[in-house]
Amino acid sequence: MAIKSGSEYFERVKKLKPNVYIGGRAVYRDTLELTTALNVTKLTFDVAFQPEYRDLVVTRSHLTGEEINRFNHVHRSPEDLLKKQEMIRVLAPRTGSCIQRCMSNDVLNALGIVTKEIDEAKGTDYHGHFLKYLEYYQREDLMAGGAQTDAKGDRSKRPHQQVDPDLYLHIVEKKRDGIIVRGAKLHNTSASYSDELLVIPTRALTAEDKDWAVALAIPADTDGVKLITRVTSTRSRMECKAPYNEVAGWADSFTIFDDVFVPWERVFLCGEWEFAGRLALLFANYHRHSYTGCKPGVTDIVMGACALLAEYHGVPNAPHIRDEIAELMVLAELLYAAGIAASIKANPTSSGIYEPAFIYSNAGRYLAGKNVYHEYDTLCAIAGGLPATLPAEADWLNPDTRAFLEKYIMRNPKISAEKQHRLFRFISDFSCSAVGGVCQYAGVHGGGSPVMELIGIRSQYDLESKKRLVKYLAGIED
Amino acid sequence: MAIKSGSEYFERVKKLKPNVYIGGRAVYRDTLELTTALNVTKLTFDVAFQPEYRDLVVTRSHLTGEEINRFNHVHRSPEDLLKKQEMIRVLAPRTGSCIQRCMSNDVLNALGIVTKEIDEAKGTDYHGHFLKYLEYYQREDLMAGGAQTDAKGDRSKRPHQQVDPDLYLHIVEKKRDGIIVRGAKLHNTSASYSDELLVIPTRALTAEDKDWAVALAIPADTDGVKLITRVTSTRSRMECKAPYNEVAGWADSFTIFDDVFVPWERVFLCGEWEFAGRLALLFANYHRHSYTGCKPGVTDIVMGACALLAEYHGVPNAPHIRDEIAELMVLAELLYAAGIAASIKANPTSSGIYEPAFIYSNAGRYLAGKNVYHEYDTLCAIAGGLPATLPAEADWLNPDTRAFLEKYIMRNPKISAEKQHRLFRFISDFSCSAVGGVCQYAGVHGGGSPVMELIGIRSQYDLESKKRLVKYLAGIED
Amino acid sequence: MAIKSGSEYFERVKKLKPNVYIGGRAVYRDTLELTTALNVTKLTFDVAFQPEYRDLVVTRSHLTGEEINRFNHVHRSPEDLLKKQEMIRVLAPRTGSCIQRCMSNDVLNALGIVTKEIDEAKGTDYHGHFLKYLEYYQREDLMAGGAQTDAKGDRSKRPHQQVDPDLYLHIVEKKRDGIIVRGAKLHNTSASYSDELLVIPTRALTAEDKDWAVALAIPADTDGVKLITRVTSTRSRMECKAPYNEVAGWADSFTIFDDVFVPWERVFLCGEWEFAGRLALLFANYHRHSYTGCKPGVTDIVMGACALLAEYHGVPNAPHIRDEIAELMVLAELLYAAGIAASIKANPTSSGIYEPAFIYSNAGRYLAGKNVYHEYDTLCAIAGGLPATLPAEADWLNPDTRAFLEKYIMRNPKISAEKQHRLFRFISDFSCSAVGGVCQYAGVHGGGSPVMELIGIRSQYDLESKKRLVKYLAGIED
Amino acid sequence: MAIKSGSEYFERVKKLKPNVYIGGRAVYRDTLELTTALNVTKLTFDVAFQPEYRDLVVTRSHLTGEEINRFNHVHRSPEDLLKKQEMIRVLAPRTGSCIQRCMSNDVLNALGIVTKEIDEAKGTDYHGHFLKYLEYYQREDLMAGGAQTDAKGDRSKRPHQQVDPDLYLHIVEKKRDGIIVRGAKLHNTSASYSDELLVIPTRALTAEDKDWAVALAIPADTDGVKLITRVTSTRSRMECKAPYNEVAGWADSFTIFDDVFVPWERVFLCGEWEFAGRLALLFANYHRHSYTGCKPGVTDIVMGACALLAEYHGVPNAPHIRDEIAELMVLAELLYAAGIAASIKANPTSSGIYEPAFIYSNAGRYLAGKNVYHEYDTLCAIAGGLPATLPAEADWLNPDTRAFLEKYIMRNPKISAEKQHRLFRFISDFSCSAVGGVCQYAGVHGGGSPVMELIGIRSQYDLESKKRLVKYLAGIED
Repeated sequence: MAIKSGSEYFERVKKLKPNVYIGGRAVYRDTLELTTALNVTKLTFDVAFQPEYRDLVVTRSHLTGEEINRFNHVHRSPEDLLKKQEMIRVLAPRTGSCIQRCMSNDVLNALGIVTKEIDEAKGTDYHGHFLKYLEYYQREDLMAGGAQTDAKGDRSKRPHQQVDPDLYLHIVEKKRDGIIVRGAKLHNTSASYSDELLVIPTRALTAEDKDWAVALAIPADTDGVKLITRVTSTRSRMECKAPYNEVAGWADSFTIFDDVFVPWERVFLCGEWEFAGRLALLFANYHRHSYTGCKPGVTDIVMGACALLAEYHGVPNAPHIRDEIAELMVLAELLYAAGIAASIKANPTSSGIYEPAFIYSNAGRYLAGKNVYHEYDTLCAIAGGLPATLPAEADWLNPDTRAFLEKYIMRNPKISAEKQHRLFRFISDFSCSAVGGVCQYAGVHGGGSPVMELIGIRSQYDLESKKRLVKYLAGIED
Repeated sequence: MAIKSGSEYFERVKKLKPNVYIGGRAVYRDTLELTTALNVTKLTFDVAFQPEYRDLVVTRSHLTGEEINRFNHVHRSPEDLLKKQEMIRVLAPRTGSCIQRCMSNDVLNALGIVTKEIDEAKGTDYHGHFLKYLEYYQREDLMAGGAQTDAKGDRSKRPHQQVDPDLYLHIVEKKRDGIIVRGAKLHNTSASYSDELLVIPTRALTAEDKDWAVALAIPADTDGVKLITRVTSTRSRMECKAPYNEVAGWADSFTIFDDVFVPWERVFLCGEWEFAGRLALLFANYHRHSYTGCKPGVTDIVMGACALLAEYHGVPNAPHIRDEIAELMVLAELLYAAGIAASIKANPTSSGIYEPAFIYSNAGRYLAGKNVYHEYDTLCAIAGGLPATLPAEADWLNPDTRAFLEKYIMRNPKISAEKQHRLFRFISDFSCSAVGGVCQYAGVHGGGSPVMELIGIRSQYDLESKKRLVKYLAGIED
Repeated sequence: MAIKSGSEYFERVKKLKPNVYIGGRAVYRDTLELTTALNVTKLTFDVAFQPEYRDLVVTRSHLTGEEINRFNHVHRSPEDLLKKQEMIRVLAPRTGSCIQRCMSNDVLNALGIVTKEIDEAKGTDYHGHFLKYLEYYQREDLMAGGAQTDAKGDRSKRPHQQVDPDLYLHIVEKKRDGIIVRGAKLHNTSASYSDELLVIPTRALTAEDKDWAVALAIPADTDGVKLITRVTSTRSRMECKAPYNEVAGWADSFTIFDDVFVPWERVFLCGEWEFAGRLALLFANYHRHSYTGCKPGVTDIVMGACALLAEYHGVPNAPHIRDEIAELMVLAELLYAAGIAASIKANPTSSGIYEPAFIYSNAGRYLAGKNVYHEYDTLCAIAGGLPATLPAEADWLNPDTRAFLEKYIMRNPKISAEKQHRLFRFISDFSCSAVGGVCQYAGVHGGGSPVMELIGIRSQYDLESKKRLVKYLAGIED
Repeated sequence: MAIKSGSEYFERVKKLKPNVYIGGRAVYRDTLELTTALNVTKLTFDVAFQPEYRDLVVTRSHLTGEEINRFNHVHRSPEDLLKKQEMIRVLAPRTGSCIQRCMSNDVLNALGIVTKEIDEAKGTDYHGHFLKYLEYYQREDLMAGGAQTDAKGDRSKRPHQQVDPDLYLHIVEKKRDGIIVRGAKLHNTSASYSDELLVIPTRALTAEDKDWAVALAIPADTDGVKLITRVTSTRSRMECKAPYNEVAGWADSFTIFDDVFVPWERVFLCGEWEFAGRLALLFANYHRHSYTGCKPGVTDIVMGACALLAEYHGVPNAPHIRDEIAELMVLAELLYAAGIAASIKANPTSSGIYEPAFIYSNAGRYLAGKNVYHEYDTLCAIAGGLPATLPAEADWLNPDTRAFLEKYIMRNPKISAEKQHRLFRFISDFSCSAVGGVCQYAGVHGGGSPVMELIGIRSQYDLESKKRLVKYLAGIED
C-alpha cells in the first residue's frame, strides 16, 4: 500500500547516516532533540488512518490510480487546491504552528509544471525524470525537505558577482552519469528528519548565472551532504503534560553540499537559467497558497486563547476584547478567502497541474506576514503579564509553593486553578519562549517575506488597465 | 422586451409626481440638480445593449425565462453571485464611485429568501406576493431605491422605547386592503430618481417592537411620501469635459412616510418581528457582497491615479510610491477574494436563492471600510499639494493666466501640459471636493459601518471550536 | 503704536493693485471670494486687543523694545518658542483649521538666522538688510505670505537640469540697484491677501544651481507679480449662522514672478547656494514647530465633535467611542509634547535667535501628517452617515419640510433638534466639503509631507551612536 | 559615604534568608540563576563611580545634603525629572532592556507625595515615617523591589467582592506596634534580589475596600514573605562572550505575604481608602515617566541593529530599510519628547516633590506599549530568517562545521564572518528567545498596559473645553 504510517516513516529515517549536526555533535535522526519535530511529521502520516481526517488526507495518484497521502499529490483541479488548503487549516493548528510537510508538496507541484515547460521549450526530458521520481515518491510515501534559499552573500549582488561562487548552490561538474554540485541551502525546515531533499533555485537568473540554475532530488544522507541544524521545540513538561508540548517544534538546517553527486535521473534543471525564476516563483506561489491554510489555523489558536482568557478572567464580554477577537476572525477569514480565490481562479498548465492564481495567494500571504506580530500583541494584551512571570512548572509541583500558586492564580471562581494554570502555562510556552520568537520569524519570512509578496504582485498585476481607466475618467486622450 | 434603455427609464421617472424636495423646493425628477445621478442610472440600463458588457449584464429570469438585466436577477447559484460581483467591479469604476443600482438587487434577493421562510413558519403568503412583484419588476426593468435605515433616535433605545414612535417606521393601521405606515427612512441613495421604493427593517426586533416589523414596495411618488434630498455631484466643467464630471454623483433622501397606504400585495413583512433581524442582516449580507465588487473598483481608480502621478511627476519607479501602489493592489484583491469566497461558499435557501457566505462578505466589507480614508491618504501623499491649490477652470481658460499655468504645471516634459492639467483637475475633483468627502462617508458607512461587520461576524462565527482547539493543545479537560 | 487692528490691515490690503486672479478675473483684495480668508487674518490682529489673549499675542521687539504682535517676533529663548506654540494652539482651532499667519513668522526667523550665517561666512551684509526690514515689518505690523515651493517640474531633476529654467525661481539679472527674478512659487497660502511676500528657496542646491539661490521680500503687488488664486472656503449660511462658516477658509496662489525687480535692501540671499538648503530646512523646522501648535488644535475640534456626537446620539459612554476619543487625546498631546521638547531643547544661533530642536519638531509634524486622514475617519465613524446626507440648509428653512427634518434628526431627546441640526451641519461642512478635502491635503503636505520629515530626521540623527551601542552589546569590536 | 558599590550591595543581599523559590527549591540570592539579574543591579551602583556617568547618576539628598545615587532621589524640580529620564535612557540600553531600579525610585516619589497629602487631610504622621525611612534608605543606598499588582482574582469584581479576600493584599490585624497583612503581589520584578520591598495598592478603592488600603516597606526576607520566582535571562555563551548575555535578564516574583508583621514606622497607608487610587496612579505616573527614558533606549538598540544589518547585508541604503529605521527614530523621539514635556510641565505638590504632567507621561507610555511588537516586527523583517535558524554556538565552535558556517554566513565581504556571526547571534538571543518573548510582554504591560493609559488619560483630560470649542464653532448655544 502506498500509504505509510508514522512509525514506518520513523523506521526509515532512523536508518539514515548520521550527517545531522546538532549542538556540536553529529547525530542520527532518532536523537532526543528531534523528538518533537518527528512527532509532527509522524502525525502527517498517521492522520491518513484516522477516519475523521481520511477524506481530507487520502486521495488518488493520477499516475497509478492508487490511494496516496494528499501531501504527495499534484493538483489536477481547483478542487484539489481547495482540499489541500482545507487539510492544512485542519491539521496545522493541531501541531500548534507548522505542519511542515506542505513544503515538499509545493516543490513537487512546481517541479511538475516547470519540467514540462522546459521540455517543451528545449526538447529535454526533465518531465520524464520527474514523473518517474514522483511515482516512486508516492509509492513509498516519502517525506522530503524543500531546499530553496541559498546563502546569498552580498544582497546587492547576483550569483556570478559574489566573491565566493558557492554562496549560491551551483553546478561544479557535469559528468556522464550525473552532476556535482556545491554550495549550501539555508533555513531548511525538516531537512534533518526527511527521507529526501528537493532542491530548487532561489531566484530569477541571467545567462551569466547559468551554472547556478539547478534543481534536483537526493536522499538526505547522500555523501557530501551535511545538515547543521538548529532545533526549535517547546519546553517539555514534567507532569502537566499537554499535546502542544509534544508537537510544537521543528528543526532548521544549514544544508551543506560539499561536492555532492546527483545522477541525471534526479536532475530537473541544469543550466536552463531562463526557467530558474519561473520555478522559484511557482514554488513560492504554491507555498504561499499553503500559508492560506496554515496561518488562519494559527490565528484560530490565538483567537481561541483570547476567548478562553476573557472567560477565565471573568470578563467574557469586555468590549475591547470582543472587538480584538472579531478582528482576528476577520484576519483569519480574509486570508482563507484569499486561498479560496487562488484555488477557484487557478490556471491549468501544460503538465495538467493547476497553478493557484498568483495575485490571491500572494495577497493572502502578505496579509498574514504583516499581522504575525500584531496577533502576538493581541494575545499579550489580553493575557496580561502572567505568561511572562509564571514560575516554572517545578514551583507548581513543589509542595511548599503549590498552594500559594493555586490560590493566587485564581480568576473566575468557576474555573479550577488547574485549568487556569494550564491555560497560562500554554500561553507562556506559546509566546514567552524561544519557540514563540522563532514562530514570529517563521510567520514573517517563511515562504517569502511580505516585501517579496509586494514585489511579486507588482510584477504580475495589470496596472496598465487601471491607468487607462483613470485616463478615461479624467478625459485624457492618448 | 424586458430589457429597457436608459432613456426609457428616464421617460418613466420624469412623469412621477414632484415629491422630491431639493434646495428648498419641490421638483420633478428631471430637475437639473439630478442630472449626474440620472446619468449613472441610465448607464446601468444602457450597458445591456453594449456588446462588451452584454455577457455580464444580461441574464435570464428564472420566472419567465426571458432575458433580463442582471440588476433585477435573483441569484440561483454561486456562479450567479460571482457574475454579479464581476459586473459591479467592471461598472462601478466607470462611474467614478457608486453604481447605485446594486442596492435594489440586494433587497430583492433578501426579500425573496425571507418571504419564503416566513411563509414556511407562519403559513402566510408573502412569497407569493414577492414572486408576482418580482415578475412585474423584471418585466418592466424597474429601478428601485432601497430604504432600510430608520431615523433611530436615541441610539441606546429600541424602537418601542423611543419617545417618538415614528423614529422607526411602523404600522399605524391594518386595513382590509392594505396597511398604513408612518416614519422615515434615511440616507436613501437613489430614492429620488427611482421608480419604486423597497422598504425593509433596519435591525433585529423584539416582540414589543412588532409594529415596527414591516417590509413593502411602493411607487416612489405614492401619496404621503416626501423625498427630502441632498444632491452630491461633481463640479461641472465649462470646457475641459471629462466622463468623471458627467457621472460621479448621486442624491440621498430623507424619505418621509407621512401615513402612507400600501396594498397587501406589496407587503412582505407585517408584524412577524422574529424575521426582522434575518431580513435586515440578509440585505446587509448581499449589499456587503456587492461592496466586494464596487470597492475594489474604486481602489482601481486610486491605484491608477497613483501610477499616472508617478509617471507625470517623472518618478515612475520611486520605491515608496511603488510600495504604496502594491499595497493598494493587495487591498483591492483581498477584498475581491472575500467576495469570491462568499460566492463559492454560498448557501442555498428554501427559496432556491443562494445566500453569500456571511463571514466572507462581512470580512471583505470590513477591510474596505477600514481603508477608505487610508486610500485617500495614499493618493494625497503621492499627488502632492496641487489638487488642493489648483486654480479654477476659469483661470485655466483665462488667456491672461493660461500660459503661466501651462508653464508651471509642467512636470515630466514628455507629458503635455494639457494632460497634466486634466490629471490634477480630476484628482482635485475626486478628493478635494464635497463629492470626495461624501464618498469617504459612503465608503465607511454605506452597507454597514465596520463596527457593524465586526458585530455581525462575531454573532455568526464558530468561536467555540477555537476554544476547544486551545483546550486540546493546553491539555485542559472539560 | 506698532500693534495694528484687523481693520487697519484690511484698509491697507484693499489698496493694493488688482494683481489677484480668481475665477478668470483680476480682482482687488476686497473681492467677495476672499471674505473668509480675510476674516481669519483680521482675527490675528484683533486678538492683540482682547484681554484674554493679550499675554499670548503681545510681546516686545528685541530691536525697539516696543510692544509688537507675537506673529512678528523672532524668538530669543526657549520660552519664546513655547509661547508661540501655545498661541497657535489657542488661536488655530478658533478658525476651524489654519491660522495662516505663522508662516510669515517662520520665514522671518529662518531669514534672521541664515542672513547672519552668510554674513559671517562671506562678509556680505544680508543680516543688516534683514534687521532693517524686520524693524519696518514690526513697526507697521505687516502680514506676509511665505513663498517657498517652486514649480519643480520633473521631480527627478535638479533646477539647472530642468528643460525650462523657470521651473525654479531664479535670478535673471543683477543690476546696480537690485536684481530681477523669474519663475513661480506655488501653493502660497495667504499670498493673495498679504501686504508682503517673503521668498526663500525650496531645497538644497549645488554650485551649478547658484542662480536659483535667492531669497527676498517684496510688496505683494510689485510689478510683474501675478497671484493666480484658488479660494477654499466653507459653505456660507443663510440663517443658521456659525463662526466656523465665517472663518474657515483661505486662498492659495500660483505666484508668478514675471521678471520682477527687487532692490538690494530686500534681497537676503543671492547666489550663495551653500546656504539654500540651510534656509529651506530652517523654515521647515520653524513651520513644523508651528504645526505642533495648530494640529493639536485641530485634533481638539475633532475630539470635541466626537464627544458631542456620543452625547447627542445618546451613547456618551459607548466603549469604542471613548477609546477612539482617548486615542485622539494621545495624538494631540504627543504632538504638542514634541513641540515642547523642540522648544526646550532649542539651540541658540549666532543671530541670537533660537532654533527649535529639529528632530522633535519633525517627529511631531510626521505624526500629525500620518494621522490626518485617520482623524477624519474617526469623526466619520462616530458621526454615522448623516453629515453626508443632510439636506441643504434651504430644506431646513423650507416650511414644507422643516417639521419632518426636525422630527427625524432627533437623537438624545434631551438635546433640541436645533442643536442636533447645528452639530451635524457643522460636521458636514467640516468633513463633507471641498474645505474638508483641502484640509486633508494641507494636513498631509503643508509645511512638508511626512516623507520629507523622515528624510530630514534621517539626515540629522545620530544613528552611528546606536550602531556602536549594538556593537558593544553584541561583543563586536571595531 | 551614602553611595555604595555593586559588590557592597551584593554582599548585603546574599546574607538575606533563603525565602526565594526557584525551580522547585528555596535558595539564597547568590544562586546561579540570578547571576544576570544581579549583574544589572550591580551596574546601577557601579556607574556612580564611573566618571562618564557621574553627573547623571550622582545627586544630593535634599534631606542630608549628602551625595546619593539618583535612583534614591525624590525629584524637587522639573530639571530633576529631566535628569532622571536622561539617566535611564543612557543606562537602560546598556543592559539590553530594563534597568529595573527605576521602580523603587518611582514608588518612593509617589509615597513622598501621598503620605504628605494624607497627613494634611487626616492628621496622621505617615510623611514623618516616610522621611525617616527615606533618609535611612538613601544613607544605606538600598535597592527595593516595588510590589503593586495584586492577584486581582475575578477581573469583574472589586477587592471586597472577591470570593477569597486575599486576592488583594489586605490588613488582617492592627496591633499596638504594627499591622499584619496577608495576600500576594504579582509580577514583582527584582523583588528576589532587593534589600527591601515597597508595597502600594494597585487600584482606586471604595469605602468597603478600606482594609485593602495599605502601603508599607519591609526587608525582603521578613518572616512570612515567600518569593516564588521566575527567572528570565539570556542564553549564556561558552566562548563568544558578549555584554548582552551578561546583563540581559531579571526575575519576577509572586510575592506571598503569609501573615506578615509590619511595624508602624514602616506603614504609609492603612485604611485611608480615598488615597489608594491617588497613590496607585501617582506611582503609575512616575513609572510611565521612567518608561519615556528606557523604552527609547530599547528602540535605540533596535534601530542600531537594523542599521548594522543593512550594512552587513550589503544594502546600507535600501529605501524601505531606511524608511523603517527613520520611523523608529520618530517613535523613540516622540516618546522621549513626551517625557520631556511631562518633566517641564511637572507640578509641585505639598511635599515639595514634583509630579510629572500625567497626560504626557501616559501618552508616551501608550505610544511605547502600542509599538513594542511593531519594533520586533521591523527588526525581524530586516534581519531575514537567520536569527531563527542559526545553529547553536556549539556548532559554531565544532571544527567539523565551523568552516561551513563561516563560509555561508558571509554577506558583505568587507565584514568578517566573526562579526556577522556575533551580530546574528545577538539578534537571535534578543528576539528568538524566551527573554525576547518576555520583553515583549514587559513592553506591553510593565508600568501599565496601553489600555490603562487610555483610561488614565481620559480621566484627567479636559474634554469639556473641547466640546465648548465645537459648540462655539458650530453656533450651538448652551
